[in-house]
Amino acid sequence: MVEFDPGRLRVLVFDIFGTTVDWYTGVADQAAEIFRAAGVELDAGTFAEEWRGMYLPAMQRVRDGDRDWAYLDTLHRESLDSLLERHGVGAAVDEQQRRNLVRAWHILPAWPDAVAGLARLRQHYTVVALSNGGFALLTRLIKAANLPFDSIVSAELARTYKPDPQVYLTASGLLDVAPEQTLMIACHIWDLTGARAAGLHTAFVERPGEKGPRIPADRPEDAAADLTAGNFVELAELLGC
Amino acid sequence: MVEFDPGRLRVLVFDIFGTTVDWYTGVADQAAEIFRAAGVELDAGTFAEEWRGMYLPAMQRVRDGDRDWAYLDTLHRESLDSLLERHGVGAAVDEQQRRNLVRAWHILPAWPDAVAGLARLRQHYTVVALSNGGFALLTRLIKAANLPFDSIVSAELARTYKPDPQVYLTASGLLDVAPEQTLMIACHIWDLTGARAAGLHTAFVERPGEKGPRIPADRPEDAAADLTAGNFVELAELLGC
Repeated sequence: MVEFDPGRLRVLVFDIFGTTVDWYTGVADQAAEIFRAAGVELDAGTFAEEWRGMYLPAMQRVRDGDRDWAYLDTLHRESLDSLLERHGVGAAVDEQQRRNLVRAWHILPAWPDAVAGLARLRQHYTVVALSNGGFALLTRLIKAANLPFDSIVSAELARTYKPDPQVYLTASGLLDVAPEQTLMIACHIWDLTGARAAGLHTAFVERPGEKGPRIPADRPEDAAADLTAGNFVELAELLGC
Repeated sequence: MVEFDPGRLRVLVFDIFGTTVDWYTGVADQAAEIFRAAGVELDAGTFAEEWRGMYLPAMQRVRDGDRDWAYLDTLHRESLDSLLERHGVGAAVDEQQRRNLVRAWHILPAWPDAVAGLARLRQHYTVVALSNGGFALLTRLIKAANLPFDSIVSAELARTYKPDPQVYLTASGLLDVAPEQTLMIACHIWDLTGARAAGLHTAFVERPGEKGPRIPADRPEDAAADLTAGNFVELAELLGC
């Protein structure tokens, strides 16, 4: 690993779900509304947690080659169907409501510091979204949340998922910079570990509430990142923006 | 071809060089400066024309499979080297100046209507850049010109060049819409012909000066497009934005 020198950075790549937007609140709120309409008595917050909990294993099977590449919406739909079944409410939630639940992941609220922090960082660096979300999903989400990214890179372009090193290298390659000129920003240690393995530098951003009120978020002291910040505005300050 | 119904459109994909930005003025101005510094007496406008003239044949060889996929910067560099040689000034222009000439294509002025037109269209449609320029080039150019695109798709992602239908289908596929829900906007008939062959709808935007003062631009009466507009603001009006 090349020694960390912020002056050599050219591109900042940001994780989206949890790091830039609050998936928990967004999905739980939209699910609560759909469950009400369907007459389903499920706690939407717990449901959002459980649904998100099926995300890493589903992607793992793609990364391991146990299944062909599949769009994130497809993985979300499969885990949704199985989760509704498990809760015994499979018959109550119809096709359109299931589609709307999957699309809940397309419109999520940004963390309060995200737009302002990105706007500052963008004046000095190329700021890019790098997510396991599909390209269409990310285009919609980033537009709706008004996030000032310079461009969007989806794991879909690498036909695999983070933390596969190929995803991070696809991003630095498309942006025409060396991995060590690239800083990966995330609130998930698994994501930063993957980025580091691909030769990128890493910044941990603490998002204490990102997994909701019951599940503890990853902590900075466990992250071993080049930088640690409390939010995107703090990150801009750390980088002298 | 599905009958054209503007109400069914979801995504607008825009050509960049000539359609959205004024490559002729941008490249000629930057070349004039570099030639002055190098003490080279070449007319920068004519040079820009000639250089651009080598663009379609260079990409054609990639599309035909006569050479492996190569980044647009690489094609520009090869044609630059051969053009300087042809003009007998190969010895006068050094490596750094050649790199700067290739990078002239990364920073180009937007046409005066482009930002305002895109901003209006963006309120009703997903607006996407779709260019033969590389992903890094487009990211830099769009940021510098402050163009409010929702996302960027480069022919690089399809590893071929427009007008190969695969490029247009890569765009509609990544945006998760059907080809007929997609409108390709360009000032080049060859680009619209390629888009139509892939099943997209087409809009011709007239850019009379796009090839500089000596070479006539494509004319609307030859375009056979679903829509024709004088600029992006007129296009917004035609689409009811």
